[in-house]
Amino acid sequence: MPKQAAPEHLEFAAANGLLDRRLFLRSGAGLATLGYALREPANAAPLPLEPWMTAPNGPVLPYDRPSRFESKVVRGGGGSRTGFSGVTNIKTPLHLLTGTITPAGLHHARLHSGVPDIDPDKHELLIHGLVKRPLIFTVEALSRYPLESHIYFHECGGNSEIMYDEKPSQAGVMGVHGQISCSEWTGVRLAMLMEEAGVDPKAKWILAEGADASAMTRSVPMEKVMKDALIALYQNGERVMPSNGYPMRLLLPGFEGNMQVKWLRRVKALAGPTESRDETSKYTMTHPDGKSTQFNLYIEAKSVITQPAPELKMRGPGFYEISGLAWSGYGKIVKVEVSADGGKSWAPARLEGPGSMLAMTRFRIPWQWDGGPAVLQSRATDNTGYVQPTRAALIAKRGPWANYHANMITSWSIASNGDVTHVYA
Amino acid sequence: MPKQAAPEHLEFAAANGLLDRRLFLRSGAGLATLGYALREPANAAPLPLEPWMTAPNGPVLPYDRPSRFESKVVRGGGGSRTGFSGVTNIKTPLHLLTGTITPAGLHHARLHSGVPDIDPDKHELLIHGLVKRPLIFTVEALSRYPLESHIYFHECGGNSEIMYDEKPSQAGVMGVHGQISCSEWTGVRLAMLMEEAGVDPKAKWILAEGADASAMTRSVPMEKVMKDALIALYQNGERVMPSNGYPMRLLLPGFEGNMQVKWLRRVKALAGPTESRDETSKYTMTHPDGKSTQFNLYIEAKSVITQPAPELKMRGPGFYEISGLAWSGYGKIVKVEVSADGGKSWAPARLEGPGSMLAMTRFRIPWQWDGGPAVLQSRATDNTGYVQPTRAALIAKRGPWANYHANMITSWSIASNGDVTHVYA
Repeated sequence: MPKQAAPEHLEFAAANGLLDRRLFLRSGAGLATLGYALREPANAAPLPLEPWMTAPNGPVLPYDRPSRFESKVVRGGGGSRTGFSGVTNIKTPLHLLTGTITPAGLHHARLHSGVPDIDPDKHELLIHGLVKRPLIFTVEALSRYPLESHIYFHECGGNSEIMYDEKPSQAGVMGVHGQISCSEWTGVRLAMLMEEAGVDPKAKWILAEGADASAMTRSVPMEKVMKDALIALYQNGERVMPSNGYPMRLLLPGFEGNMQVKWLRRVKALAGPTESRDETSKYTMTHPDGKSTQFNLYIEAKSVITQPAPELKMRGPGFYEISGLAWSGYGKIVKVEVSADGGKSWAPARLEGPGSMLAMTRFRIPWQWDGGPAVLQSRATDNTGYVQPTRAALIAKRGPWANYHANMITSWSIASNGDVTHVYA
Repeated sequence: MPKQAAPEHLEFAAANGLLDRRLFLRSGAGLATLGYALREPANAAPLPLEPWMTAPNGPVLPYDRPSRFESKVVRGGGGSRTGFSGVTNIKTPLHLLTGTITPAGLHHARLHSGVPDIDPDKHELLIHGLVKRPLIFTVEALSRYPLESHIYFHECGGNSEIMYDEKPSQAGVMGVHGQISCSEWTGVRLAMLMEEAGVDPKAKWILAEGADASAMTRSVPMEKVMKDALIALYQNGERVMPSNGYPMRLLLPGFEGNMQVKWLRRVKALAGPTESRDETSKYTMTHPDGKSTQFNLYIEAKSVITQPAPELKMRGPGFYEISGLAWSGYGKIVKVEVSADGGKSWAPARLEGPGSMLAMTRFRIPWQWDGGPAVLQSRATDNTGYVQPTRAALIAKRGPWANYHANMITSWSIASNGDVTHVYA
């Protein structure tokens, strides 16, 4: 594709074509003024009548599904660093979605023994251990409690782990980053149930256990349990999806996803953590001296560009909107900057979203691609002042054995032929 | 069921059992203290191992679907006042949902000729009329524009029309009120496209036409078009559902749903409105003197209790959370009050939701049902100070021929046997 000169009247916000985030709101600029060829109707030609206008249309489904023309918009695998039989990792197709809410059917899922088919009338949640009065909660009992709804992101602690590898993965934004999703979750505060059971002040942790065949277990600090842990019954208004824990899952807003045990069946109050498999052999944080620490629970601020993405070939030079997602387990995103020259110059993106704590933020910035090489990056800052690190800085901090919490800046390289590839820049 | 005395220590916020909206947050009160019988595990009995824990679980779907145990959570009909062949009205099951986001598959839909099966590569949007340069936009061209995401409610102008009838409908909260939903919509500002086409200052209205076989058409004031009209391409992050306008629909935040033309194919800039069928024979506002006015476009503030609801029989006296939805086309909800004695006394509910303009608000208030008769009502106030009217006040204002914008207060009567019925109170 020929390299294209940027329209002369444009003022750039950073090098290599990044435009002011308010450009379209402010100036009435349009695609035509930016060089995109819009089509005019032929003179006096009537509008063509497509088949869907000339015969009665089809039936309406009780539960609507995406158009058959969108059959490619599904979850997928790829890009996982490790795996063994019986374990599945199915990721959100970030490049095909926008906004901040993930459709429940496309929420990522890490599975340790597939998806259990649980009868909600037979499922029970036991609260026991260091409590005055152990209690059993049915779905019906939980539904009688006051509910709370919150929009929270949910990210696997192992999301993007492949970015610690020596060579950049070409699995695409879904394969590399697809274990991040965001939903409106509704449920009962676990604190209410703990108080109901009369939790002992000596209990400083809980053990949470799932009802799938892998009986996933994790330890959670009591402080988090009492602060904002939810037993989620609903996801985006309807019952939690089977692969996300139907009929109930633990929700620990801002914490790594693996702890937020799905198909929750048991909460045991304990004086200390249980040292379960997933917090000893896995989900530990490495350090350059070869030591590891457990219980690094908060998801650090992170962002990723979802459009353009390796899965989406560029369609010639001209105007594009660069868009992506940002989130932080410590609070909320206050700034996302975007670079088109591999981090040498940066411009602030426009932020969208519910704007509430621990929810996803969508960022957008206009970009005039001249058809030449470009390296796109995004860098998030959260309300604690934390700034998303470069890959080099993160690896220096975590050492060569790092696996989890891979929140480094991602680089998408745009080639003149329109190919988008993952590079380390 | 026996009438039950309220626990003595409770302080009530209004008559007939309404409790303070902060009760649970404040006091650590639990269901047990409110008289609900929670179950304790049998001594030393191990937890039962259900079948889903003792064998490998099932496969994961690329696009997850609700559990087979939730097959009743679907859209339905019922409660419509008028209808003729070819027209369908499919409503959101409000009593089975919570939160503020409606799953895209459960968004209500009013259909005038069924659901068209549109090939997005063949669908085009024409902008013409009083413009310098008529233009044709493909889905691909629209996708190159800057996008915006907003959480907006969407209500049919005819929602709840059956409440103008002499006798209260027993179609349930879905049948009476199910034409209200809320999504995160993403699309292109129509104003951008109008400017791209060079809209003539003499153009004060547009005609919007849909590509279904009924070619639905409505007139929209240019002021609204230029203020915040969207061409929506995405609904809750994924492409708009077929019954909601795939591949594109008009979105006019806060305006009556019928104007927000689905399967949008044509926007014509005009000096005045077109007087189309749906704005002459329908969607007009009646007055007591027998006259009608056109173009009553904003949805007035409204609320409805979704739990309890006629579809949900009460399960004995004791604690319940009363919950529902509130919205206003003029802005946002600032207060919802709830009554348990048919409007004699009121207590403020707790408000939840994104809290942004023209989005849905979820309200919740704890209630101790003593097992005696009760009449539940909710009353919304928006940020303009407008208060949702009683049915009597609304009918006095609209006259005996009223059909649309039925935003009066709804009354659910609770009988001692647990039945919930719709009454006029």
